[in-house]
Amino acid sequence: MAELPKKYKAAVYDKPGSISTKIEELDMPEPGPGEVLINLTHSGVCHSDLGVMMNTWKVLPAPTQAGQVGGHEGVGKIVKMGSGTEATVAVGDRVGIKWMAGTCGNCDACRAGVDASCFKGKVSGYYTPGTFQQFVLSPANYVTPIPDNVDSAAAAPMLCAGVTVYSALRKSNAESGNWVVILGAGGGLGHLAVQFAARGIGHRVIGVDHSSKKDIIMESGADHFIPVDGTDNMTQAVKDVTGGLGAHAVLVMTASNTAYGSGMDLLRFNGTLVCVGIPEGDMVPIAGALPGAMVTKSLKIVGSAVGNRKEAIETLDFLARGIVKTHYRVEKMDKLTEIFIDMHEGKLKGRVVLDLSS
Amino acid sequence: MAELPKKYKAAVYDKPGSISTKIEELDMPEPGPGEVLINLTHSGVCHSDLGVMMNTWKVLPAPTQAGQVGGHEGVGKIVKMGSGTEATVAVGDRVGIKWMAGTCGNCDACRAGVDASCFKGKVSGYYTPGTFQQFVLSPANYVTPIPDNVDSAAAAPMLCAGVTVYSALRKSNAESGNWVVILGAGGGLGHLAVQFAARGIGHRVIGVDHSSKKDIIMESGADHFIPVDGTDNMTQAVKDVTGGLGAHAVLVMTASNTAYGSGMDLLRFNGTLVCVGIPEGDMVPIAGALPGAMVTKSLKIVGSAVGNRKEAIETLDFLARGIVKTHYRVEKMDKLTEIFIDMHEGKLKGRVVLDLSS
Amino acid sequence: MAELPKKYKAAVYDKPGSISTKIEELDMPEPGPGEVLINLTHSGVCHSDLGVMMNTWKVLPAPTQAGQVGGHEGVGKIVKMGSGTEATVAVGDRVGIKWMAGTCGNCDACRAGVDASCFKGKVSGYYTPGTFQQFVLSPANYVTPIPDNVDSAAAAPMLCAGVTVYSALRKSNAESGNWVVILGAGGGLGHLAVQFAARGIGHRVIGVDHSSKKDIIMESGADHFIPVDGTDNMTQAVKDVTGGLGAHAVLVMTASNTAYGSGMDLLRFNGTLVCVGIPEGDMVPIAGALPGAMVTKSLKIVGSAVGNRKEAIETLDFLARGIVKTHYRVEKMDKLTEIFIDMHEGKLKGRVVLDLSS
Amino acid sequence: MAELPKKYKAAVYDKPGSISTKIEELDMPEPGPGEVLINLTHSGVCHSDLGVMMNTWKVLPAPTQAGQVGGHEGVGKIVKMGSGTEATVAVGDRVGIKWMAGTCGNCDACRAGVDASCFKGKVSGYYTPGTFQQFVLSPANYVTPIPDNVDSAAAAPMLCAGVTVYSALRKSNAESGNWVVILGAGGGLGHLAVQFAARGIGHRVIGVDHSSKKDIIMESGADHFIPVDGTDNMTQAVKDVTGGLGAHAVLVMTASNTAYGSGMDLLRFNGTLVCVGIPEGDMVPIAGALPGAMVTKSLKIVGSAVGNRKEAIETLDFLARGIVKTHYRVEKMDKLTEIFIDMHEGKLKGRVVLDLSS
Repeated sequence: MAELPKKYKAAVYDKPGSISTKIEELDMPEPGPGEVLINLTHSGVCHSDLGVMMNTWKVLPAPTQAGQVGGHEGVGKIVKMGSGTEATVAVGDRVGIKWMAGTCGNCDACRAGVDASCFKGKVSGYYTPGTFQQFVLSPANYVTPIPDNVDSAAAAPMLCAGVTVYSALRKSNAESGNWVVILGAGGGLGHLAVQFAARGIGHRVIGVDHSSKKDIIMESGADHFIPVDGTDNMTQAVKDVTGGLGAHAVLVMTASNTAYGSGMDLLRFNGTLVCVGIPEGDMVPIAGALPGAMVTKSLKIVGSAVGNRKEAIETLDFLARGIVKTHYRVEKMDKLTEIFIDMHEGKLKGRVVLDLSS
Repeated sequence: MAELPKKYKAAVYDKPGSISTKIEELDMPEPGPGEVLINLTHSGVCHSDLGVMMNTWKVLPAPTQAGQVGGHEGVGKIVKMGSGTEATVAVGDRVGIKWMAGTCGNCDACRAGVDASCFKGKVSGYYTPGTFQQFVLSPANYVTPIPDNVDSAAAAPMLCAGVTVYSALRKSNAESGNWVVILGAGGGLGHLAVQFAARGIGHRVIGVDHSSKKDIIMESGADHFIPVDGTDNMTQAVKDVTGGLGAHAVLVMTASNTAYGSGMDLLRFNGTLVCVGIPEGDMVPIAGALPGAMVTKSLKIVGSAVGNRKEAIETLDFLARGIVKTHYRVEKMDKLTEIFIDMHEGKLKGRVVLDLSS
Repeated sequence: MAELPKKYKAAVYDKPGSISTKIEELDMPEPGPGEVLINLTHSGVCHSDLGVMMNTWKVLPAPTQAGQVGGHEGVGKIVKMGSGTEATVAVGDRVGIKWMAGTCGNCDACRAGVDASCFKGKVSGYYTPGTFQQFVLSPANYVTPIPDNVDSAAAAPMLCAGVTVYSALRKSNAESGNWVVILGAGGGLGHLAVQFAARGIGHRVIGVDHSSKKDIIMESGADHFIPVDGTDNMTQAVKDVTGGLGAHAVLVMTASNTAYGSGMDLLRFNGTLVCVGIPEGDMVPIAGALPGAMVTKSLKIVGSAVGNRKEAIETLDFLARGIVKTHYRVEKMDKLTEIFIDMHEGKLKGRVVLDLSS
Repeated sequence: MAELPKKYKAAVYDKPGSISTKIEELDMPEPGPGEVLINLTHSGVCHSDLGVMMNTWKVLPAPTQAGQVGGHEGVGKIVKMGSGTEATVAVGDRVGIKWMAGTCGNCDACRAGVDASCFKGKVSGYYTPGTFQQFVLSPANYVTPIPDNVDSAAAAPMLCAGVTVYSALRKSNAESGNWVVILGAGGGLGHLAVQFAARGIGHRVIGVDHSSKKDIIMESGADHFIPVDGTDNMTQAVKDVTGGLGAHAVLVMTASNTAYGSGMDLLRFNGTLVCVGIPEGDMVPIAGALPGAMVTKSLKIVGSAVGNRKEAIETLDFLARGIVKTHYRVEKMDKLTEIFIDMHEGKLKGRVVLDLSS
């Protein structure tokens, strides 16, 4: 291993609340006990990063600070190890960093296997330096091993988008062969959800999105596509496809209150709506969360966060086996501001992965 | 068995939409294939009967018709059997009738064990003659056997209120030793829920209701009582009792949109709100059904209807073992209108069971 | 509907304990209350029929009687309906008969959704006239609807073999993406199990059987094949394929004590062995059912019977969608003895379906 | 905090394979990164310690070495902290050490919440210094917090015996109100299992053991006691109590192959046998693990090891609430050899807890 440089490049949010990133030189950190230093080569750019930078997410407890290094879908190699990490990892291991940058491993949530709700959890790219940089520290026991036959750029979006949709499908309790509606099926999360559902778990998938998204949804493995534009009665349209009963599960993969509003009516008795997308702005109750209707049809609503470590590893296993594929393009670090502008204006197509090497 | 009379007495809703019942003489019916005729001795009077009679429940598909025999908590003895019922029951068996008067046994919901959502289910006291009468027909294979050592009057309220709260507790997925908040803990459903939770399943129970209900709630086995009147911050009050984390489950046993509105904030990560009470009037979304909050804390909302046959039998088993007790008083059939008036005006204390014998 | 004949043809076991069937003319039965009369066109011939005829199955409570009409995988059309069946089915419906010919719908097992353990359950072809005949009676509410686009001959084996393997996979609790070993993967049950596991549920399948069965196993969708002949260390062979950990589940699809003996060692921690095949002769404990090993590795063993009604319908749904395919050939009724002789001598390849039309 | 001594006392196995312990002076260890040093005041003496010392447990991979400090039910206070532990614990915290002395937190088993099967797990008192000593090192993130109102001596046996029986009850999947048979109900594990089952979870408990144990079993909360001596037909005796159906679950709390042999016949359809006790000597298959019987009745067998961290904390919570009580007497460290001799000869009554203070 060549000697590490004293300085390295990072993209920081210099004016949180607006779209503004700049490249800075940071001092190389030293891994403490239980930590490793990772030389990142790739990081996905996720819609959540935009929300963190812009302070538009009401679920976050405090505003983002100037100088924050964002990003939470990083892949790289371990280059230096702190004390007490030898039994867990080794220099040269290729590993991933995800939304949860580290958890205490010891609170009620961790012990219950719900990493994402860790009472002391650290979020990559929000009050903890993220993955839009060439080097990052991580607890040795919380990195995600990357399978050998997987490309680093392809793995990056799996660490947030992939595990998020996979975990949501698990929480739906839908069985193989069951009907699953994906609202926002053509988006970054949605098209992955269709793939996991249809090809990984064996669900029968109904993709719902704008008609412009039909191709990517059907190519991702959906059984049926229903356009939101031009469908007067979504409930009836779903019933027509599902033998008159409605779907076993509805996953809301888009951050839209309108989507949430339509979701409950698409369910059959005993069905489950899974919340994934978090709408920006003021929080609005799910319109179909009506006690009367939920009691009569025995419906459920489940909030699903970013998935736990077990699910992260399973997600990458599906990628390694070729069951799911990410659509992405690779850009240099200095394009980050432009990428966020496109994302904010709704012009971004597919996922972008930053090449952090230069 | 003495010969059956040609006529018998029933209490019918003569002017649905208002509180109005009258006693009528009806012709004795004949059990068809698969049916039995039951000589009812007792029927509970449930708040749902009031909603059915008054047409104030938006979840019901059509208005109640004049002449409807109401009631859905009936106990009596089988006195005559239709063809093909010999293998299932016998004359003299003491059995119960519940909200679901009969199910097809053969639809997707029935096959999934969700009787309450049967696609062809019949509701006792709503478009199917109910239990405010001396004789009733029932499918032989859907009656609920009453354990020997249980009083018929005590069993009646278990067939709706009892099984409803028991089923709701099961659907909460709370484990023995977990914290369960009962909203409306002093009501007809609530005080039973406290008993099942605390004494039957081993939950730690926090009862919430008006301060006037403290005694019945604590006597029912609650660990803590929190009055709605005089508690400024219910969320903090629940946290104080639960080691700062909130409850594992919240059961809404009252038909109040206000109660629903406060419920979600009382949950810890991974917690579940169970909907039982159905507010009257226009349907209002649960205020805490916010995608952002549900995702962040991995929360769930579950609608729980009246329970299935397995749960009905288990409910009566808890009664037979003395684990739970119903508080009720017995009244004659001709008091039914007065009972409904008291119920409507909120003056009714405890449960009323009709003595149908005269 | 043309008038029904007075007599019809049936294949009966005339000398139970030996392989001996003969065609007899039986009187046309009349459906009682709740029953329908079905004109069967096809019946699968299952290995269990051989065990029933030969009295070699120690799990059956009493010896088979001379004159028994065997068979439990029947498909045909409803031609006559008893009283009280109109709400459930109609003349002309194409339906199936399975191992459980009828259940009480009302015992603890039925209420728990475990049809196969019904306390009063009737077994088709064993003390209840089976499906090796042109007409059969059935409870109207227990027939299995056959999807429109499915061939009757193809549907027949799904009603026992299909639902049995599907139910076993469900009971394994293995998730999509998990490793599942099928012991006896090339047999009548096994090759269907491979298809359901690999193509229906998304498991990673390791098929184990004699090397002569490799082709059918791989064509059925297995990821790996391990021959029992020529593999010195099956445990190591499974570890080599599964990253050193062993399988999440092992399904024993063959009626072999040797297979059971090897199964437990193939499991990883928390793994589940599912018992399906029932060895003939004296009952022998599963060699790996050792308390010490089971405790140390947190292992489970689960007995899985023939599946319930919900699973039967789901099984046919997978067939209708083309996910699974049965390999079978059609033979006339009068070939039944020859078929059983071939089966007994281990010469039978694939499944045989009787054409009952003549 | 006074300065720590340079030496301290420990009881070591000086001649493993025989009953022989001696008190030695050991050097005070220094906590490494992530570790804490605990000043132990109490340690339970468990039957498993005897098996480890005597090398009579075939499930252990290697013989115990001379000089091993045994014990795995320790309670004490943290007196010194290694680097990187400040966020997790503090000096003065009262904590417990259990059978699993530490786990990697990062293997498939840990990620699945099955600590007890950690691929790199360390066992207290077997190749890792145990709790028969005044000071012990432990990973900071794997200690079990002891509730304030609990006596240290009373807490000690909960850390192995308590969590073992609690975890086993959870794995039985028996619901509150279900019938649970405890085989060996009067023993060290058994009488705790009766308390957790009857008082903690609301099971109906049938205790089975020698007639001399009747009092402790009934005092622990059992509904029924059935003596092994003087009961000709245990299966019938259990049926008589359970309405003819048998129990929902059977827990084998004794290390007896005979107990395992009788257990499966006591189950109703869908019932579960939970393995806890590990018989010494050659491993013998469970006599009732017969594929035919397990398939026909849909039975399950589950191996349950020592429970995970979540269960350990819940176990202590039941103790703190007074739901369960341990019967124990306190002895000085130098009595350890005598205690093991009594245990080996079957003369030990109740649990012994060592006072490690002198």
